[in-house]
Amino acid sequence: MIAVILAGGSGTRFWPLSRKDRPKQLVRLFGDRVMIGQTVERLSRITTTDRIVVVCGEHLIDAMREALPELDEDNFLIEPAARNTAPAIALAAMWANHRFPGEVVGVFPSDHFIGAPDRFASAVELASDAAKLGHIVTLGMQPNRPETGYGYIKQGGAVDGAQGVHVVDAFVEKPDHERALEYLSAGGYLWNAGMFFFTPETLMGEVERQLPEMYEGILGIAADFDMPTYDETLSSVFPTLESISIDYGVMENAGSVCVVPAEFAWSDVGHWAALPEIRETDEHSNVLEAPVILHDVEDCVFYSTNDARPIAAAGVKGLVVVDTPEAVLVIPKERCQDVRELKRMFDDSK
Amino acid sequence: MIAVILAGGSGTRFWPLSRKDRPKQLVRLFGDRVMIGQTVERLSRITTTDRIVVVCGEHLIDAMREALPELDEDNFLIEPAARNTAPAIALAAMWANHRFPGEVVGVFPSDHFIGAPDRFASAVELASDAAKLGHIVTLGMQPNRPETGYGYIKQGGAVDGAQGVHVVDAFVEKPDHERALEYLSAGGYLWNAGMFFFTPETLMGEVERQLPEMYEGILGIAADFDMPTYDETLSSVFPTLESISIDYGVMENAGSVCVVPAEFAWSDVGHWAALPEIRETDEHSNVLEAPVILHDVEDCVFYSTNDARPIAAAGVKGLVVVDTPEAVLVIPKERCQDVRELKRMFDDSK
Repeated sequence: MIAVILAGGSGTRFWPLSRKDRPKQLVRLFGDRVMIGQTVERLSRITTTDRIVVVCGEHLIDAMREALPELDEDNFLIEPAARNTAPAIALAAMWANHRFPGEVVGVFPSDHFIGAPDRFASAVELASDAAKLGHIVTLGMQPNRPETGYGYIKQGGAVDGAQGVHVVDAFVEKPDHERALEYLSAGGYLWNAGMFFFTPETLMGEVERQLPEMYEGILGIAADFDMPTYDETLSSVFPTLESISIDYGVMENAGSVCVVPAEFAWSDVGHWAALPEIRETDEHSNVLEAPVILHDVEDCVFYSTNDARPIAAAGVKGLVVVDTPEAVLVIPKERCQDVRELKRMFDDSK
Repeated sequence: MIAVILAGGSGTRFWPLSRKDRPKQLVRLFGDRVMIGQTVERLSRITTTDRIVVVCGEHLIDAMREALPELDEDNFLIEPAARNTAPAIALAAMWANHRFPGEVVGVFPSDHFIGAPDRFASAVELASDAAKLGHIVTLGMQPNRPETGYGYIKQGGAVDGAQGVHVVDAFVEKPDHERALEYLSAGGYLWNAGMFFFTPETLMGEVERQLPEMYEGILGIAADFDMPTYDETLSSVFPTLESISIDYGVMENAGSVCVVPAEFAWSDVGHWAALPEIRETDEHSNVLEAPVILHDVEDCVFYSTNDARPIAAAGVKGLVVVDTPEAVLVIPKERCQDVRELKRMFDDSK
């Protein structure tokens, strides 16, 4: 399998740790490596590193290469402009077909958390096998709360000859709270986590049918793979492609879309308050990614890049405190969406 | 008048800004100078700097001299051991009598806030004049809340021939909340702010009568003023003196104690949450002694020693956030008493 890692995220929600030139995929939220490093490591157990390709903007390329020393320099694809996921995935599919003709392609976010790498590998194998049969296959996550921030997948009947794989009855856009509650209680709805599997032939057939202009553009770029003119062609053509997501541009109207219900813990780690989902907490439910001195503190998140200086707190609950060289952030967990606003104000103050 | 500044405070309540070797009197909480610097400046408008003497522990002496360049090196008295206020004041009274015989002595805390220096000067003049008549005179602050952290002074009738000066009916120790409420609604009760005025003769007469052993000890030390043996005598005698406060050891049973009700804003700035009493706040009642980026933040205190790094906060209320090279402190205003506990835990963690 060719593993395509989409690493174009802009990373405002983990400010002041993340920044434009160091988005979430390039920060170390936990463990030894930055998020995309953990993603590559997880995928290295499933495929060989020469089959892993990272798609990102030009401004991130140096940091990406530094963060991912196990990848060859040819295993990075640059997006000269941000055009959402469809053009990036189509280009990566053509790259895969060029390098490893006939192999299945899997698309993965660069900065998500996956709890059980072995179960993840099994799901990828099921999805990959189904993709070989000509389906476009997605992984669906089991919802455990009425989340309004994700798209949902309505799971249909089993697919003949492909165990653990179901027909997708519908892709559902981000619901309101009431509808999310309905999905949760009805069952049979899964979260769309942005992981897709297909053969380049299948995908490009759908792109040709649904997005013919994009198809021509991508083919034009791919014709120059390994040619001295590649960079120039990429720079001139890619920014002209329609900016559209793979979900909206391809999946929703694709001929045969299937889903593999995942059986592993997953989080897109969307903001600071999501850390407790993916990190061990202390006996008072605090996430401690910082030296701390705490007295009567519960349900908080502490993160620091400075090992020599503690964060001291008493009598607080449900608070996020982040200490980086750029700023000290103090925000209640339930207000973490306001981090974007604070970052904007910070940028404006410069 | 001789102004004696008691600067022996240990300063745990403004951690992590204050420390053992940099207690509150030596930190800059607001304005251009550290607290004791502002105290000396205020007193310099009332008396000459050669009449100002600072009493402090040996470990602070270098920092004190640096913070108070306007004082001569002879204008510091060292307490070789902390023995509470009575021995320090008695020693300072003898120093005053030695250097400027016959002048009145005023005793002042080193780290309090006084809102109106001119009114303060007027009150000091009234108190000083009454002290010349042989009274021990204290300044009483008008209470504006049922504070349980201060001692109270029950104000009696006017003193003959001393305008604005009243007899002290009683010194009352720190009351419980209910009693503090009674004092507030009854009126005629003032806060004891630790400012006293007397002639050395009057004070030492009371010390001789009430604390005869201390009297002998202090006289023994004072006999060596300006002698090569002074340091040795001080070091051997002072630590043997009874550790007792001037209030308990002298004032409560003194022959003639009067009070001048103060007409200026005052705060002992007892903890971080007291800053709004003495600082301008923004339109949302926040104290901003730090670069900040705020969104929907009210009634908070922000203090930083790092001008280059902002504190960013959203959706918080009534919180104190302090950023120093030693630690980042996050604590609700109403929990500021827990700063001591955090400091203890911090010291233990070293």
